[in-house]
Amino acid sequence: MSETRNRTRIINWEEPRSPAELGKDLSGLEFLQKMMAGEVPRPPISLLMNFALTELSEGSAVFTCEPDEYHYNPLGTIHGGLAATVLDSAMACAVHSTLPAGVAYTTLEIKINYVRPMTVRTGVVRGEARVIHTGGRVATAEGKVVDANGKLYAHGTTTCMIFRA
Amino acid sequence: MSETRNRTRIINWEEPRSPAELGKDLSGLEFLQKMMAGEVPRPPISLLMNFALTELSEGSAVFTCEPDEYHYNPLGTIHGGLAATVLDSAMACAVHSTLPAGVAYTTLEIKINYVRPMTVRTGVVRGEARVIHTGGRVATAEGKVVDANGKLYAHGTTTCMIFRA
Amino acid sequence: MSETRNRTRIINWEEPRSPAELGKDLSGLEFLQKMMAGEVPRPPISLLMNFALTELSEGSAVFTCEPDEYHYNPLGTIHGGLAATVLDSAMACAVHSTLPAGVAYTTLEIKINYVRPMTVRTGVVRGEARVIHTGGRVATAEGKVVDANGKLYAHGTTTCMIFRA
Amino acid sequence: MSETRNRTRIINWEEPRSPAELGKDLSGLEFLQKMMAGEVPRPPISLLMNFALTELSEGSAVFTCEPDEYHYNPLGTIHGGLAATVLDSAMACAVHSTLPAGVAYTTLEIKINYVRPMTVRTGVVRGEARVIHTGGRVATAEGKVVDANGKLYAHGTTTCMIFRA
Repeated sequence: MSETRNRTRIINWEEPRSPAELGKDLSGLEFLQKMMAGEVPRPPISLLMNFALTELSEGSAVFTCEPDEYHYNPLGTIHGGLAATVLDSAMACAVHSTLPAGVAYTTLEIKINYVRPMTVRTGVVRGEARVIHTGGRVATAEGKVVDANGKLYAHGTTTCMIFRA
Repeated sequence: MSETRNRTRIINWEEPRSPAELGKDLSGLEFLQKMMAGEVPRPPISLLMNFALTELSEGSAVFTCEPDEYHYNPLGTIHGGLAATVLDSAMACAVHSTLPAGVAYTTLEIKINYVRPMTVRTGVVRGEARVIHTGGRVATAEGKVVDANGKLYAHGTTTCMIFRA
Repeated sequence: MSETRNRTRIINWEEPRSPAELGKDLSGLEFLQKMMAGEVPRPPISLLMNFALTELSEGSAVFTCEPDEYHYNPLGTIHGGLAATVLDSAMACAVHSTLPAGVAYTTLEIKINYVRPMTVRTGVVRGEARVIHTGGRVATAEGKVVDANGKLYAHGTTTCMIFRA
Repeated sequence: MSETRNRTRIINWEEPRSPAELGKDLSGLEFLQKMMAGEVPRPPISLLMNFALTELSEGSAVFTCEPDEYHYNPLGTIHGGLAATVLDSAMACAVHSTLPAGVAYTTLEIKINYVRPMTVRTGVVRGEARVIHTGGRVATAEGKVVDANGKLYAHGTTTCMIFRA
């Protein structure tokens, strides 16, 4: 049996600094809602890695992703960088969604646990995140990667610093 | 001044499971040396994210990467997933390089600290990793991302499980 | 106003290796239930730091502790080692509670976030933990330290290795 | 053979908030040097757990500790809370030693890996820490616990937030 899988991808993206500038005048929730609605361009990394913000509320965010062959590591499974990137995005957006306009944040650290490998047969996974704590200067969040049956693949936490005016 | 930057990338990769199978008959160091020499296909993730193994010895590994616009997050900087992916790769390969043929491993967890953002102006960065401890069933490693001047952007640690025959 | 606080503690403990030996013939849940019931001696660390296992079910554990002046760091608050010790205990016991007799485990790593300081005025806190994932060789758990009003002080995760016969 | 080990400890400490207040007028290095010299009272936690600051320079700190039976967990080895407490102390002091007078800090998170268990036969161990990065608002540090022969027992990292005037 021969496999005739297409092993080429063409990726196009838009200049990413202008949307980021736009974000500075919006609350986190507004900015992310516009992104989810396609009113601001998707960030290049989400086009490159092929994941997208699909659910959002204040303090939580879900990204959806279909692990594919172009995410593979040298061991014959999906590279851990995919779960790390999706969870970093989801946890950071969960934090961002709690911030008013004019308040910036940055990710200080992420911690990711891998509980089972993903492959091309895993199907669509969800990176679900929610804020654990938001303080004046620091926020923490947690997230997990699960498949359509709720099976767990990875989970993590993050610490973000918040810059209030 | 108008920017006429090309915002398209075409990515081609090879079927990744056969090289992984090949790896099972080689020591970690031999397998990774073949990968570095181009004798086994590069894993798809390294083509997608554009990073490559460039230095290797028993217990240490260096990956090189040029942060580019297609790695951008919605905040107008390089997404943290890039450093996470490069460090995960470098730390895992540092561990792998210590393992004899027939011994497998898997990454249990990674922890990444971000100390300053990368941008398109950062230039080529190195993800340098070395093993901290290798035991019978567990290995730990550490790594850092530095630019050409040695400036630090991120650092991390990992815990891997080892499956000896 | 003068404070006449007593600043002496006398700690007595029992030889700790015999109870640990006993534990090898019991399931994790049975062993921990006996410890909670006082049928096996409390481990010395719990007498030294003054915390105790107070709730237990398969996959979850709660330790209770009253932060006191003898837990203070040089900054005038409770040392982070207290939350780390209590969470390490609670998360490890949550894992242990899922293991059958004859199955050992060890903690590979803990990650603790501190969200606000504890002081002598915090009152009794609970270190609550639950298992996230139990596999053949690895388990992960999470925990948090909260006061009587549910206010959060610290949270964490752990990775344990399991040794099945 | 009968063991006649003494299983009682008496712990005395001094009121810890006054020394902490004093620290606010000194650089971190000055404050910690005074503590090491016995010119300010040792913090209660270091008397309780029996560890002490023994080496110090700008950006690095060493604590010394003799693991003893009163540090035991229910598994018959030294509780992981000891290494966590010693490393938290050493890493935080390494950061503190870089800060001028009037600049406070707090620990946001610690991550500790356990590579082998300590017992009463381990002998004196050193918790050695050094700063990885100090920025305007955040510092990171790393540390390890080693015995007299340099054998590694645990290692970790921390993220601290810095409050400059």
